[in-house]
Amino acid sequence: MDRTETVEFMNMCMICNGDKVLVQDRKKQSWSGIAFPGGHVEAGESFTEAVIREVYEETGLTISDPHLCGIEDWYEDNVHYVILLYRTERFEGTLHSSDEGEVWWENIGTLSELNLAAGMENKLCVFKQDYISELFYRKDGDEWVYELK
Amino acid sequence: MDRTETVEFMNMCMICNGDKVLVQDRKKQSWSGIAFPGGHVEAGESFTEAVIREVYEETGLTISDPHLCGIEDWYEDNVHYVILLYRTERFEGTLHSSDEGEVWWENIGTLSELNLAAGMENKLCVFKQDYISELFYRKDGDEWVYELK
Repeated sequence: MDRTETVEFMNMCMICNGDKVLVQDRKKQSWSGIAFPGGHVEAGESFTEAVIREVYEETGLTISDPHLCGIEDWYEDNVHYVILLYRTERFEGTLHSSDEGEVWWENIGTLSELNLAAGMENKLCVFKQDYISELFYRKDGDEWVYELK
Repeated sequence: MDRTETVEFMNMCMICNGDKVLVQDRKKQSWSGIAFPGGHVEAGESFTEAVIREVYEETGLTISDPHLCGIEDWYEDNVHYVILLYRTERFEGTLHSSDEGEVWWENIGTLSELNLAAGMENKLCVFKQDYISELFYRKDGDEWVYELK
């Protein structure tokens, strides 16, 4: 029996530095606003290699020990979209922005006052709460509804 | 750009009850021995729904709050195999075995003395250690080598 499905894997990482987190002001029109760095998993990569590479490309920082906080996922047009959400406090290197968007350290207390990218508030529940392992979006008629699990 | 890949998602859950864990003596010849209950993710399911369903089918227990410990994955014949590894201490219902194999509560201290299914010891590192998020298998010539990340 074929149990395979078509999947697009992505990742995102919350990098913590005391009471600050590294944010990115995403330029892409398809999903703009304040988010954390991240991107796609390339074929053949481990998930951990992928998030380390993406953070390096977008921030100049080399993270270590990314901890998997949980997963965001949804099904759309026969594709299963899966975003692995990581957190780490360990990094080295010199911060610089990339074409993807400006990056800077932001107080975690003022994060919610920024122009967050769509859905970031739901992602933050997974990043921050150890007891939440999944943010699942389900189509209910024409509306997308989310479930935190 | 098409970023999709072909993926087979599975899951496995370590159910803890004090100093005991629920084990399953798997009958399938393709992967036999002592393991934890789990199975495949069906199309359209959230990952959390899938692990709750599989545990119920194989043990009669209804778990709640499964916590994602980490991921096991490898690439083989252009398929990315991904096993989501969960842990929970919350369950209700009456234990019974299924066609997949006999289930019983085993002392966690004597687990390593059992006839564990291939690769279970590596999985146990992910189930038990909070700082490990991935067990990745990479082909090195004709050999599979594992990396804990």
